[in-house]
Amino acid sequence: MSRHPDVPTITIATRGTVTYDPPDQNQPRFTSETTVLKRVFTLPELELESGETLRHVQIGYETYGNLNEAKDNAILITHYFTGTSHAAGRYHESDVEPGYWDSLIGPGKAIDTDKYFVIGVDCLSNLNTGNPMVFTTGPLSINPKTDRPYMADFPVVTIGDFVRSQYALCRYLGLPKLRAVAGPSMGAMQALEWGARFPEFVERIVGVIGGGLQTEPYLIGLLRQWCAPIYLDSNFRDGFYDQANPPQAGLAAALELVTLTALSPAWANKAFARRPAVPEIGPEQNLRNMFAVENALSVTARSRAAIADANSFLRIAKAVQLFDINPIKSRLKARILWITAKRDLLLFPEYAERGITSLRALGLHVETFELASEGGHLDGLGEAKPAAETIARFLN
Amino acid sequence: MSRHPDVPTITIATRGTVTYDPPDQNQPRFTSETTVLKRVFTLPELELESGETLRHVQIGYETYGNLNEAKDNAILITHYFTGTSHAAGRYHESDVEPGYWDSLIGPGKAIDTDKYFVIGVDCLSNLNTGNPMVFTTGPLSINPKTDRPYMADFPVVTIGDFVRSQYALCRYLGLPKLRAVAGPSMGAMQALEWGARFPEFVERIVGVIGGGLQTEPYLIGLLRQWCAPIYLDSNFRDGFYDQANPPQAGLAAALELVTLTALSPAWANKAFARRPAVPEIGPEQNLRNMFAVENALSVTARSRAAIADANSFLRIAKAVQLFDINPIKSRLKARILWITAKRDLLLFPEYAERGITSLRALGLHVETFELASEGGHLDGLGEAKPAAETIARFLN
Repeated sequence: MSRHPDVPTITIATRGTVTYDPPDQNQPRFTSETTVLKRVFTLPELELESGETLRHVQIGYETYGNLNEAKDNAILITHYFTGTSHAAGRYHESDVEPGYWDSLIGPGKAIDTDKYFVIGVDCLSNLNTGNPMVFTTGPLSINPKTDRPYMADFPVVTIGDFVRSQYALCRYLGLPKLRAVAGPSMGAMQALEWGARFPEFVERIVGVIGGGLQTEPYLIGLLRQWCAPIYLDSNFRDGFYDQANPPQAGLAAALELVTLTALSPAWANKAFARRPAVPEIGPEQNLRNMFAVENALSVTARSRAAIADANSFLRIAKAVQLFDINPIKSRLKARILWITAKRDLLLFPEYAERGITSLRALGLHVETFELASEGGHLDGLGEAKPAAETIARFLN
Repeated sequence: MSRHPDVPTITIATRGTVTYDPPDQNQPRFTSETTVLKRVFTLPELELESGETLRHVQIGYETYGNLNEAKDNAILITHYFTGTSHAAGRYHESDVEPGYWDSLIGPGKAIDTDKYFVIGVDCLSNLNTGNPMVFTTGPLSINPKTDRPYMADFPVVTIGDFVRSQYALCRYLGLPKLRAVAGPSMGAMQALEWGARFPEFVERIVGVIGGGLQTEPYLIGLLRQWCAPIYLDSNFRDGFYDQANPPQAGLAAALELVTLTALSPAWANKAFARRPAVPEIGPEQNLRNMFAVENALSVTARSRAAIADANSFLRIAKAVQLFDINPIKSRLKARILWITAKRDLLLFPEYAERGITSLRALGLHVETFELASEGGHLDGLGEAKPAAETIARFLN
């Protein structure tokens, strides 16, 4: 975890309980005291959009609240690029931070666990392979064909593949449909893809800081820049790196750029201004002397890289580049709530505007809400609470 | 030069004439037929802000038009991050592209060479060391102390150092003052620094896509990301690289990110949409298969890197990070014209707004103009013509 609280970081657990069992549907009421179990669902095989078949696919997930008798209160939460299934609560009472959307998910909150059965789920190729609560199949998983990790042999996966693996999980959990799929950023892309692929299964979509119906070309270009440092790291070795000596410097540089583009000028001004990294040691004194903002990005990115995997990063970036539901958008039936962040410098509000226009042209019900804070893209994670009432009403 | 005309690139010459002589002040009228001479001015020594002294400093420049008898018609043009002195005209009749601001500088244009004596000048540590018309002192220059190139021993330089070297050039040219200093992006930073350092010498400042009075913290963070790929390239060797085997891949990645952040979603949509790099070869088919926008960025950046130097890049990035005229802004006297680009994603219009507010609070005359096109930061180079009338009036 970052030693710089000013820079948002992902929440990782050092302890927690993992189970391969599905949730008992009479769990005690979910509260802030509840320790969350990480669950693992195994899918014997998953045919990917590429035509390749993955075998023995593990999908990590966790649940908050209980499924009702009518089985009509399930809400699936899909995560952002660097996230995991851990959307709410704590795995262990000593966890410093709860899940990323804890401000929205819980008893009496916007996504009310007293009313809804909420499921957080990992994407395939989740990049946080060093997080002890991440088991989801990806490039570091064992390839049944070789009994060794896939590494660079892991196939290209898509947001559609993520969604189909999640659909299998929902069926395994006995769900006849979902009241909603909700997620921030890449999670919003998954929610839209869900609605287009399984229109009878998804009643509502809540997309937060999610761009539009496709990854726009400028973002395709930016995702390439995110990946570039990994390819430059001499430890990368075309993706067949020594796991004891992985391309950490490249991955850290990649995660720095991710972090920066998810933030904003207002964030940097407020947290750091033009202060040097070390008081009394001027950045002008040496080429490598840093400003505070640089040091914070560096420290945060290195800590994130320490639990992440480069091959997994590259595959998620590819999945986001490939995102495009335009060819199947006419299948959508769900009611949609679309939430943007005013100063989003990663998934610009203009992307969302184009998507919303396109959805409304299809005759779909689309409500919108703007997060007016100045923190950038990540306001959709940490500063989404102003949207709470709108979300609660929309889900009801 | 880029094979992708859709991606802005820098103009390089393969032929041209270089002279160490100052311009004859009775040159023939500058026209589109005039071949521009690159001139080199040598400064015996320059004490830097760091306290170090550079000896035998060469500064490249070029001139368009003639100095009048009153010597009150000189305008200095300072260049952007990846630019050179080559602001207008052609070095050789076969040059495909003229200088970067040829739409603004020339006979009858906004910066009218029939009226004004216009001087384009290189910054210290200019990064285009492989451009045959760039001679300006930087890390690849010979260190008189060792008779070998400075490489990583080249000191930190600042925008203030650029400006002081340019002041020496102006005095050498016999100028008592400048009617204006004008420049885009980093050129606008130089123009402001000029006004604050030599308030009696500068009558007007024209800053285009220049941010505010300082490099804001978010941009400091972004400049760090620009530099990161160079440090990751195993050829970099702490800046003492083999000149036959320089960190080209890292430099190309750096220049890709520079190029992308200077452009915009509208540019990417218009030029490439979601087309694959190679028709019929889908980006989904292989992790390394590219979209067209990725390929264009890659090709352009590699061609730019082929004539650029990594150590020089790092020093200019540092100079921009260090830019901050707040401590000396009260010295400013010049009238100021500040031009922003609406969709600038590098030097956000909000930076300029803060700067303008601050300058007006000092009682300074500040006019503004917004380039309303959607192309991003680079509209201040290629799409600045809508500002022509405003600039012409302001200079008059």
